Amino acid sequence: MRMMSRVKRASGDWRRYRLTIAYDGSGFAGWQSQPGGNTVQDKLDGAIGRICAAASGVQGSGRTDSGVHALGQVAHFDAPSGLSMDAAAWQRALNSHLPPAIRVLECHLADPCFHSRFSASGKVYRYEWFTGSILHPLRVGRAWHVRRCPDEELVRRVAELFQGTHDFAAFAANRGEPEEERGGTVRTIHGVTVTRLGDDWTAVFEGEGFLYKMVRLLVGGMVRCGQGACSFEELRKRLEQPASAAKSPLAAPAEGLYLVAVRYPPECLAPCPEAPL
Amino acid sequence: MRMMSRVKRASGDWRRYRLTIAYDGSGFAGWQSQPGGNTVQDKLDGAIGRICAAASGVQGSGRTDSGVHALGQVAHFDAPSGLSMDAAAWQRALNSHLPPAIRVLECHLADPCFHSRFSASGKVYRYEWFTGSILHPLRVGRAWHVRRCPDEELVRRVAELFQGTHDFAAFAANRGEPEEERGGTVRTIHGVTVTRLGDDWTAVFEGEGFLYKMVRLLVGGMVRCGQGACSFEELRKRLEQPASAAKSPLAAPAEGLYLVAVRYPPECLAPCPEAPL
Repeated sequence: MRMMSRVKRASGDWRRYRLTIAYDGSGFAGWQSQPGGNTVQDKLDGAIGRICAAASGVQGSGRTDSGVHALGQVAHFDAPSGLSMDAAAWQRALNSHLPPAIRVLECHLADPCFHSRFSASGKVYRYEWFTGSILHPLRVGRAWHVRRCPDEELVRRVAELFQGTHDFAAFAANRGEPEEERGGTVRTIHGVTVTRLGDDWTAVFEGEGFLYKMVRLLVGGMVRCGQGACSFEELRKRLEQPASAAKSPLAAPAEGLYLVAVRYPPECLAPCPEAPL
Repeated sequence: MRMMSRVKRASGDWRRYRLTIAYDGSGFAGWQSQPGGNTVQDKLDGAIGRICAAASGVQGSGRTDSGVHALGQVAHFDAPSGLSMDAAAWQRALNSHLPPAIRVLECHLADPCFHSRFSASGKVYRYEWFTGSILHPLRVGRAWHVRRCPDEELVRRVAELFQGTHDFAAFAANRGEPEEERGGTVRTIHGVTVTRLGDDWTAVFEGEGFLYKMVRLLVGGMVRCGQGACSFEELRKRLEQPASAAKSPLAAPAEGLYLVAVRYPPECLAPCPEAPL
């Protein structure tokens, strides 16, 4: 249904806008619209609807779970061409209708064929964890408090193991939605960069795409292996023979995860001259 | 009443503990105990009471308002000497009974005469504000969003004006409590350090003591003067002739304020050898 409306809306009567959005995931039930309405998508749809009832809802580059933060989520929506609002006016209007925990950082007129999800060529996630004895109150909900410090050398070895093209089926949670499985479970991770500053650890994952809960399961594997709770060989087997892997590895909690950026091929981001209003 | 119990409790039957506490003020109705119970002091008293019903409640170095954060609030309480718990055990027990938004960073056995408020020789506060057009969602509740950027030169001139010993009566809100006024309204500010990194501004106030809402009123004055909303001469007059000053200057909002540290004379912090348990 969405695909239909997308094609219909991308005609000359509509303008497509690309949004870059940041949010503090703590207070929301994730990205994806839900009956309860307390999701980032619901808040954006509500704001758009209040500004222009005829505009479409937003389509995001992908979901984020409850508690996951975004520094650069990307989404698009369509608004009637006749509206006397340019991209800058949309950005201001959206921010004035959104709660402060969600901000539209950028709004650009996009090519009618641009699609936040299907045009995406890659994503960057960051995961933060803290291994000191006391997690500072101002980091609560923003980092995983790991009480037993993992071995740094092992964490880095596992990070290297994850890089490249693998079948990540054994590092994905099944959301019970066949849509997600369309592309299979093989993904390419271009890089996993682990940075440590004392008790503060950060792992940045850059890849073509990630399965559901994949980054949290990879971080869970890195940390657990570094703690000696599972072996390097176990993780390697999980990657090489996903079918025979034991179910349910430990996923790192949502609060340490940040969607940093969504990548698109340059031609998808080419500036679209705004027709005179 | 508190003074009475303080003297009584500091006898040989009691041990006094000094706590250094950090908290995210967003979710609490300030420091000071209130009937509703959702204050930092109430949470600490509740935790202490659950660990040892005979222990005293905490006495803090001073109040912080709802929404004000602390990186190093100091408080003390008394526990029966007979208890088989040392300071480290108290710290662990308190943190396991407190919400994650309040953490005891340090717990030390203190001299029986140590008093978090009356022994204090100074305090350090930090105030953060942001002058970009979009406040990042992860800074909401942690910085003041100032939409009209003040003139940096003027902000720095006002910061300099505030340094030294002045009657700050016209930079204080009256809480209606004579107790606060006992020491008069003359205070010495040793230093106000303004740091600016692009749109991120920080002012650090180090002084002997501060009146109620004083730091927020000083920051309000600095920013408003920098914006041209009040003149430098107006602020100088407010400092030199407080009695003739107009009422109600603008206070900067609570969420940008951090109690960084409470200072004590070295002799007050001398380590107290813990008697064998």
